[in-house]
Amino acid sequence: MDSLEAAQAEALLRPYIGVRERDLLRGDATGDGVFIAEGEVVVRVLVQRGRFAVRSLLLEARRVEPLRDVIDALPESVPVYVVPQSVMDGIVGFAIHRGILALGSRGVPLTPSELLGGQAEGKPELLVGLVGLANHDNVGSIFRSAAAFGVRGVLLDDTSCDPLYRKAIRVSVGGALVVPFARSESATAMLDAIEAHGWEPIALTPRGEETFGNLGKACSRRVLLMGTEGEGLPDHVLTRARRVRIDMEPTLDSLNVAVATGIAIYEATQGMRAHARR
Amino acid sequence: MDSLEAAQAEALLRPYIGVRERDLLRGDATGDGVFIAEGEVVVRVLVQRGRFAVRSLLLEARRVEPLRDVIDALPESVPVYVVPQSVMDGIVGFAIHRGILALGSRGVPLTPSELLGGQAEGKPELLVGLVGLANHDNVGSIFRSAAAFGVRGVLLDDTSCDPLYRKAIRVSVGGALVVPFARSESATAMLDAIEAHGWEPIALTPRGEETFGNLGKACSRRVLLMGTEGEGLPDHVLTRARRVRIDMEPTLDSLNVAVATGIAIYEATQGMRAHARR
Repeated sequence: MDSLEAAQAEALLRPYIGVRERDLLRGDATGDGVFIAEGEVVVRVLVQRGRFAVRSLLLEARRVEPLRDVIDALPESVPVYVVPQSVMDGIVGFAIHRGILALGSRGVPLTPSELLGGQAEGKPELLVGLVGLANHDNVGSIFRSAAAFGVRGVLLDDTSCDPLYRKAIRVSVGGALVVPFARSESATAMLDAIEAHGWEPIALTPRGEETFGNLGKACSRRVLLMGTEGEGLPDHVLTRARRVRIDMEPTLDSLNVAVATGIAIYEATQGMRAHARR
Repeated sequence: MDSLEAAQAEALLRPYIGVRERDLLRGDATGDGVFIAEGEVVVRVLVQRGRFAVRSLLLEARRVEPLRDVIDALPESVPVYVVPQSVMDGIVGFAIHRGILALGSRGVPLTPSELLGGQAEGKPELLVGLVGLANHDNVGSIFRSAAAFGVRGVLLDDTSCDPLYRKAIRVSVGGALVVPFARSESATAMLDAIEAHGWEPIALTPRGEETFGNLGKACSRRVLLMGTEGEGLPDHVLTRARRVRIDMEPTLDSLNVAVATGIAIYEATQGMRAHARR
């Protein structure tokens, strides 16, 4: 662990400075190929899963002991900056109650083809494809559910938000650091890739001709396509997919998109879990 | 519609003044037997469902025409205050982008016995019981799912938050204005009432001995008990209930409580919907 001198601080801690203001200004991505993870649970996932390289940790002094095992698991080359709470708040621009931040490297993004290719022989698998999901809470929550149910990965169109945005990672409780994802340049390109790799696109829509319960377990490789709550999936996506609805009361409302995705993932992976137990 | 004079304004609009500050200070309930509903969709639900009396509307001027049918559906005794956006922002203490607020009367709260009693003969039904759910986003989202799947009502213990808190109503997209709810003085009292009325308590817990899919459709009156994400349901509740888990990956995480509740409601009401179609 380094003991910080004032002269070093500004340069070393630059990626952490004004985290919140940057969030507000840019609305997406921390840029520069890095992302910020916050809180003990999320930073544990980041370090222990090892999917992304850790560049540094920034800890409030009393957070060091509870994280001792995590710190010991880091390569020696990764600096751990320890500061008083007041200094931390000053650096990041707001009160970080959890006092634990990490800077991760995004690395080289996966391509949709990499995510869709190379399937294990005969094993049923599920991907989720997001179209137009711009809300970090919803995308974070979807990654959390995807992790909980063993979804193989998430495809994003160009208008969906960044899963490595600080709040999305936090809401995902680390799911965004675990479940692989890849971005397509458009929803059309996403569908092209899905078809080219022989996966079955399943569109969740209130206008679906069949209910989820009737979907059956025949196809072993499915992509569950989700659109926004208001507009839903665009017609040009719906026409290229099998359209399925969640059976609910006809009188009121739709579901929150993160809840609907959770239900759909749960339904679609039940067959997979049954298969795995066989 | 009244045309407001400055002299009347302060008295008439008092319930709307500083809505946000009151939220922050009191953390719960708008008090005085009233609640605030905001946004077109929610205010439509409030007026059209008629579960709660409407005391007044406060509208930004350009919101009047789109809401004409709602205004016409109100009793003539209900005042509709129309103000410029800037005045509205000044009154409520922050920018109300939707420009539509309503003041509703809480009325006399239902008792748990009223919610648990008087079941239609032989019809399978589901209640949800919340223990310790203090987050308005989660409770709002749960009410939204409850409305979507036709849940009969929601029981709350004394530590769960107010479904008629402004943000909970907004997140529920009006579900909190549709699904009946009743508060028990404790989780123990809630269980007592559930048992006294012959409902079967089902506790959702990662430590559940059986999975949801194996629950079966035998019992027609069930209460789905949900606890917090961190601590879960307390032991004294778990020991009095049938313990059920959602089948998921053993390696990572739990689900968000609103997503878990959505999945559990979906599963538990599938049998109800099949029954209704028979």
